[in-house]
Amino acid sequence: MTGSEAVDLGFARVDIGREARQGLPEVIYGTGKTAAEIAAIARTLLRHNTGPVLATRVDGDTAAAVLAEVAAAAVPGSTYDASARLLLWRPAAPIGFAVVVAAAGTADQPVAREAAAIAAAVGLTVTTVTDVGVAGLHRLLAEQDRLRAADTVIVVAGMEGALASAIGGLVACPVVAVPTSTGYGAGLEGITALLAMHASCAAGITVVNIDSGFGAAMAAFRLSRVVNRSTT
Amino acid sequence: MTGSEAVDLGFARVDIGREARQGLPEVIYGTGKTAAEIAAIARTLLRHNTGPVLATRVDGDTAAAVLAEVAAAAVPGSTYDASARLLLWRPAAPIGFAVVVAAAGTADQPVAREAAAIAAAVGLTVTTVTDVGVAGLHRLLAEQDRLRAADTVIVVAGMEGALASAIGGLVACPVVAVPTSTGYGAGLEGITALLAMHASCAAGITVVNIDSGFGAAMAAFRLSRVVNRSTT
Amino acid sequence: MTGSEAVDLGFARVDIGREARQGLPEVIYGTGKTAAEIAAIARTLLRHNTGPVLATRVDGDTAAAVLAEVAAAAVPGSTYDASARLLLWRPAAPIGFAVVVAAAGTADQPVAREAAAIAAAVGLTVTTVTDVGVAGLHRLLAEQDRLRAADTVIVVAGMEGALASAIGGLVACPVVAVPTSTGYGAGLEGITALLAMHASCAAGITVVNIDSGFGAAMAAFRLSRVVNRSTT
Amino acid sequence: MTGSEAVDLGFARVDIGREARQGLPEVIYGTGKTAAEIAAIARTLLRHNTGPVLATRVDGDTAAAVLAEVAAAAVPGSTYDASARLLLWRPAAPIGFAVVVAAAGTADQPVAREAAAIAAAVGLTVTTVTDVGVAGLHRLLAEQDRLRAADTVIVVAGMEGALASAIGGLVACPVVAVPTSTGYGAGLEGITALLAMHASCAAGITVVNIDSGFGAAMAAFRLSRVVNRSTT
Amino acid sequence: MTGSEAVDLGFARVDIGREARQGLPEVIYGTGKTAAEIAAIARTLLRHNTGPVLATRVDGDTAAAVLAEVAAAAVPGSTYDASARLLLWRPAAPIGFAVVVAAAGTADQPVAREAAAIAAAVGLTVTTVTDVGVAGLHRLLAEQDRLRAADTVIVVAGMEGALASAIGGLVACPVVAVPTSTGYGAGLEGITALLAMHASCAAGITVVNIDSGFGAAMAAFRLSRVVNRSTT
Amino acid sequence: MTGSEAVDLGFARVDIGREARQGLPEVIYGTGKTAAEIAAIARTLLRHNTGPVLATRVDGDTAAAVLAEVAAAAVPGSTYDASARLLLWRPAAPIGFAVVVAAAGTADQPVAREAAAIAAAVGLTVTTVTDVGVAGLHRLLAEQDRLRAADTVIVVAGMEGALASAIGGLVACPVVAVPTSTGYGAGLEGITALLAMHASCAAGITVVNIDSGFGAAMAAFRLSRVVNRSTT
Amino acid sequence: MTGSEAVDLGFARVDIGREARQGLPEVIYGTGKTAAEIAAIARTLLRHNTGPVLATRVDGDTAAAVLAEVAAAAVPGSTYDASARLLLWRPAAPIGFAVVVAAAGTADQPVAREAAAIAAAVGLTVTTVTDVGVAGLHRLLAEQDRLRAADTVIVVAGMEGALASAIGGLVACPVVAVPTSTGYGAGLEGITALLAMHASCAAGITVVNIDSGFGAAMAAFRLSRVVNRSTT
Amino acid sequence: MTGSEAVDLGFARVDIGREARQGLPEVIYGTGKTAAEIAAIARTLLRHNTGPVLATRVDGDTAAAVLAEVAAAAVPGSTYDASARLLLWRPAAPIGFAVVVAAAGTADQPVAREAAAIAAAVGLTVTTVTDVGVAGLHRLLAEQDRLRAADTVIVVAGMEGALASAIGGLVACPVVAVPTSTGYGAGLEGITALLAMHASCAAGITVVNIDSGFGAAMAAFRLSRVVNRSTT
Repeated sequence: MTGSEAVDLGFARVDIGREARQGLPEVIYGTGKTAAEIAAIARTLLRHNTGPVLATRVDGDTAAAVLAEVAAAAVPGSTYDASARLLLWRPAAPIGFAVVVAAAGTADQPVAREAAAIAAAVGLTVTTVTDVGVAGLHRLLAEQDRLRAADTVIVVAGMEGALASAIGGLVACPVVAVPTSTGYGAGLEGITALLAMHASCAAGITVVNIDSGFGAAMAAFRLSRVVNRSTT
Repeated sequence: MTGSEAVDLGFARVDIGREARQGLPEVIYGTGKTAAEIAAIARTLLRHNTGPVLATRVDGDTAAAVLAEVAAAAVPGSTYDASARLLLWRPAAPIGFAVVVAAAGTADQPVAREAAAIAAAVGLTVTTVTDVGVAGLHRLLAEQDRLRAADTVIVVAGMEGALASAIGGLVACPVVAVPTSTGYGAGLEGITALLAMHASCAAGITVVNIDSGFGAAMAAFRLSRVVNRSTT
Repeated sequence: MTGSEAVDLGFARVDIGREARQGLPEVIYGTGKTAAEIAAIARTLLRHNTGPVLATRVDGDTAAAVLAEVAAAAVPGSTYDASARLLLWRPAAPIGFAVVVAAAGTADQPVAREAAAIAAAVGLTVTTVTDVGVAGLHRLLAEQDRLRAADTVIVVAGMEGALASAIGGLVACPVVAVPTSTGYGAGLEGITALLAMHASCAAGITVVNIDSGFGAAMAAFRLSRVVNRSTT
Repeated sequence: MTGSEAVDLGFARVDIGREARQGLPEVIYGTGKTAAEIAAIARTLLRHNTGPVLATRVDGDTAAAVLAEVAAAAVPGSTYDASARLLLWRPAAPIGFAVVVAAAGTADQPVAREAAAIAAAVGLTVTTVTDVGVAGLHRLLAEQDRLRAADTVIVVAGMEGALASAIGGLVACPVVAVPTSTGYGAGLEGITALLAMHASCAAGITVVNIDSGFGAAMAAFRLSRVVNRSTT
Repeated sequence: MTGSEAVDLGFARVDIGREARQGLPEVIYGTGKTAAEIAAIARTLLRHNTGPVLATRVDGDTAAAVLAEVAAAAVPGSTYDASARLLLWRPAAPIGFAVVVAAAGTADQPVAREAAAIAAAVGLTVTTVTDVGVAGLHRLLAEQDRLRAADTVIVVAGMEGALASAIGGLVACPVVAVPTSTGYGAGLEGITALLAMHASCAAGITVVNIDSGFGAAMAAFRLSRVVNRSTT
Repeated sequence: MTGSEAVDLGFARVDIGREARQGLPEVIYGTGKTAAEIAAIARTLLRHNTGPVLATRVDGDTAAAVLAEVAAAAVPGSTYDASARLLLWRPAAPIGFAVVVAAAGTADQPVAREAAAIAAAVGLTVTTVTDVGVAGLHRLLAEQDRLRAADTVIVVAGMEGALASAIGGLVACPVVAVPTSTGYGAGLEGITALLAMHASCAAGITVVNIDSGFGAAMAAFRLSRVVNRSTT
Repeated sequence: MTGSEAVDLGFARVDIGREARQGLPEVIYGTGKTAAEIAAIARTLLRHNTGPVLATRVDGDTAAAVLAEVAAAAVPGSTYDASARLLLWRPAAPIGFAVVVAAAGTADQPVAREAAAIAAAVGLTVTTVTDVGVAGLHRLLAEQDRLRAADTVIVVAGMEGALASAIGGLVACPVVAVPTSTGYGAGLEGITALLAMHASCAAGITVVNIDSGFGAAMAAFRLSRVVNRSTT
Repeated sequence: MTGSEAVDLGFARVDIGREARQGLPEVIYGTGKTAAEIAAIARTLLRHNTGPVLATRVDGDTAAAVLAEVAAAAVPGSTYDASARLLLWRPAAPIGFAVVVAAAGTADQPVAREAAAIAAAVGLTVTTVTDVGVAGLHRLLAEQDRLRAADTVIVVAGMEGALASAIGGLVACPVVAVPTSTGYGAGLEGITALLAMHASCAAGITVVNIDSGFGAAMAAFRLSRVVNRSTT
């Protein structure tokens, strides 16, 4: 573990050893970075690593500028997913780990899409289930088989976040809950859902930060690696 | 509306006109009152009103002392319900309004008992359903018929309070949710459940204060009076 | 209870069985939805259900676009209420259940209008009383008769939310309190009013989410159904 | 303004110039002090000042010990008011300033008694009105004349604290609101009442700390001095 | 106390009896009202009352529109104070009650100006002292004489709000503290200053809502009336 | 999914189908239950299931009483772990899934012991690492090899909870963070650690409730099942 | 200590004695001040003091206007640092006190730049270290020598703020932690980092306000003066 | 930096290299540790280090037991300071660094004593100033010379914590503020003082955790080492 694994770009020090250490390079967090900065980091990672390179929370205009600049460096296979706000180069090959992303309502979809797109980019096989909030249990129960077939379920829910508890009781696999900032008033911008998911009566569900589809996808990626290690 | 409707006991001014105005006399809140004070208020209400008289949150020793003192005044039909911590004189005759009290877990039972005992005392017909938390949906679904037969459902739930949303989606009748202070950590002594119930995705459920089985029973009582008014 | 009761529109799964289960179809929450999405859901509900269809929190431009599109499907009787931000098709016939919407101040009127418009749309008979905050008790007391004639009072109040307690003590019928985010500073965007309404000294009042005129109207609708059930 | 106005007792430096500067010596806050410490400070103030000396929040046993010790110093006219938890020496002569202490409920009485006892000790003329919470407006309105005759009204209320708004609208004189920590759940140990009183719709009411009957009495004392200054 | 004291304008019910009851008509809160609404209320108050009429938190454009409309009704003596955002008609004659408005820093001036302008409008004599925060005690101490000559001091301070405690210890007259939302981070938009002012070690200071120069001026007005009553 | 999977004990309805659905029966939460209640539930689970039965948060006296009663039913292999406050019957055979429990400080050990004991009881292989807080990085780095050999790391940390971020950056496997209520003041009884763990700069770590060693162990159990499923 | 040390500009009273008292004149806080106001204060300080004059949080347009105006007064050596948003006149000569500003991530750089620029302006020797968050310990450890050579380390970190604890354990010199408002959700705009830094397990680190690079630089300046005093 | 610097006691791993790294061994935090545990850690530190050994927050009974046990190991010079709850072995020789501990009120003294005792134990020269709260500025100003002579001032204050701002403006040296949990209601157990100290208008003061006299003393110790380094 030495400092030489980092490339200093002046405005940032890029950790090029993380791919070797953790199976995936640093993911670029787009918020607050210019297109030039994102492009510079992406190029560095593409040069010094061999796996997928991702930039999250990138709006359309910035994405176009980044792609123009990085394409100039002739990197093939790059895409921009507007609904997930994800820039992606060199997606990973599927490794056969099944993730179901279950979103409580339509307002939770942007976060669900971020989770799904990132999980797919790092090689997981993703199915999405929407509009299964607990106020309409029959819609949730209709999806039981799909949920039970998953290796991991990512639950995306705002408001009271009750979906995490309900799914936690239905499946035996790991459940990663993502509280969202949807709703208003007593929802407290997602704080209520976050607290409620922690206070859940379902045993063994875990929680990531508000609106962090990214965090949930990364948690699923960590899980997939343990399975892979065991089977090889 | 005049001040003469109140009887001044020095330490309290007893509102003896509320029975006429609202169909039920002031309910005595036992916390922080001595047995002598509770007894004095109860005697005043028994004398100036004709319906049920209740004292809530009364522990066993205080209850015994109160009963001894008020019994001295030869008031028949008084009882103490230890599990509900409720002292009761002259319970109301049943009026044919069906309330189901649904408690998420065993830890929620003290609050559920308070709600059930007070609702019964004021003339409602109460059924209790327990251990129907959303982490075990099959137990909840098994009670669907009973829930749908209710005129009002009181949902008692702590932790993440998700049961209110689930039942709100199953029944068409009024749902009164009572958050409880059970659980630990992120449950924040019931604040999380209270906020979550307000942020619920189920439309038209209403909420009362934390641990207030009393509040929920009183809300149900108000409902029962509208029905009675309509039918007579 | 089967999954076949839902129509999958891709971006949403519309619950077309709710009208049968709960007496009213899913209400469309307009925030964050495009005119095309609202129109698609509305058309689906209009086709598979027979009662009123509502979309809340819809601004004027979106409403015009939705109406243009749904009118293309030749659905009669649609209206847009700008002050309530409500889109409505096929309003219900009055069922003779009297709701009084009492607003503490002029700043609370947008929420009061949402409550009143939705309640009327689902068949309730609505009267509105404004500017009856507790700092001017004579204005409140002048409305006592109107309040006492109600089957349910919806209290809309921001700042300290004291009106709920005052009305709770004046009437015997159900009281549904709606905290609003009016005011500034210590009002904490409605959190203070919400907490204060829960801590109210008036027994049996219930509370819905901040600014949720919709929630209060839905709670009143649930009440009206119990009365109807009893009388028929 | 020099340091010589303080007497150093080792564990405390007693400000003996405050009586001259502000019309009243430092009031001893009993919480966390031993009987010996309270006695030492009281003796110092009695020796170097000429007006009333007060110690608040003193329990019965400590009070007895203090009185025994200070009586040894032959100070006449000392009393202990158990309900107000106030130790008092040399009460001030009445100055003809009328304060009404209005308490919302019986649970608010300990705080109301502290306010009343301290106000009386410093020379104000105090009337107490109890059980006038807004859930029973007729009881409040019955006291209108007494409230309007006051030079200042101290409103003591917990739970939702609505009484401050109601009285603020009834009287023209200064209103000092004291939130109390009574109630449970959403009352948040008095925080809700404090915030609600600040968000009040009644103009010009002011607020002191939770449970601070002392603070309200001192505020009234400050008011009385302005009046005195104007009239002499 | 009858309802006839109110004039119903449709969008608002104007309380025209308050001048008689409390010495000052309802003050119009400008936020969220149109120029037409403000003008209508102002005209009503000007017609049915004889004293000053005020509208607070009115921006320049709205003020011009209101003045144009109300001037059409030929009301003399109207002014707009842009720094205080105050519209005023018929200011009261000075009654000889001295208020000092002390502002901790330059950022607190908008709130200080609102307090000063309203206090002057209702007849108080106002002096303003600025930049006397406790981090520069010498500037505060240099103003001691001016502060001690006041009948009431209004302290306007954001950040940690310490100025209220310091002035509370310097003067014997009433101190009304106004926390402001200046500062950033741990200042929590004024919540920290509000709480700190309540927890103050200076006895008998009182507090109004965050940024409420209006509330402080009204509190001072209530004080001035007691003095007037005593001297006449 | 039918209700017949539950056994009704009056005070609780025991879910005997969970072992089949989720691989482990309901774990008995000891807080607030009597020894008789715990014993009754344990006996029911032992009779209707075949795997491990656990009761958490059981103090020594209660444990002795439970063991005495359940032993009467001749159930072999029961133990009580006082440091983990865990009652256990029929522990599972090891399944070869390696969990490292890393505790930041000595004060975090009770929670770490709960996590370790429960994880071991359900068949996981547990190693514990203590005193590896980030204020002494060399102690943490000395354990790198052990941490990297894990299939899952459970991080137990109070105060600022920084250990989760540090370990999240060192290992590639799943990291489950448990905030603890150790520390004082700004630690806010574990809320600060919970929030900090969610805001962590390390990607893909997940969080459970404050002090919930149980929740972390259950999360690890869910993970172990995915691995098992994949390998068989 | 007299009031004559202040120059009254009408809108502000400039403290021109602070340089003598504390070694540095008042720093001008740019937020909410016009270019004319900043220029007037700067000119006053430049005229009555001899050391550096600083204005913080000044945007580019305002800075240009201020410089134009103050340059008119022929003051040499003025600069504007856009990345730090700092206007500076007459920077101090270096005094040989070494400060390392360590920033956890790229998003923390604006705050780090403010700290570094102000520290340099008052005569400290500043080195900046970036991207050393605890999720990549090797990058932090690679900087150990530089950190250990410092007289003071300023740690700038948002999200969970863990870097303060880690550096606190690595160095023996004073550590001043600056929480930043970077991140989202559970980071609570910097509140989480602030609380976490206070709850840190590293002994003797101190904390300043959220995003206050200014506060940290001033704290370092105070430290440098003690060293200077000791050595001369 | 290797793991061999730690001694594993089973229940704790003692960091015996910290004295070399940071000039002082790990300080033992007594809360929650048995006398035997404290004694074992103390003996380990005494054996492997040469400087002072401290255990904080130790009550009298535990201290006696620890001293008895460690004395058995024949360690000279050990003392217990009951008012500071500090156990101490081998105090450091004075290094000529002057710390003034300024406490706002008598209730803040336990925290002030902890700060003073620990600072003295590690070789600093400590003076204590008490009862200098800002509500009595003359007492504070009388101590100006003593405060200005300090190398560092530790300000201990609860309630509104205003003393930190006032002293920050009086002295040029470093100021370390310790909020305390004294007071009630709006003081929020020290949270208000902590926030207020951060929002302080005095530049460059820093803050440690609530009630952490220990943290402030350690911060002062870090400062003293920089001075020492510079002078040698």
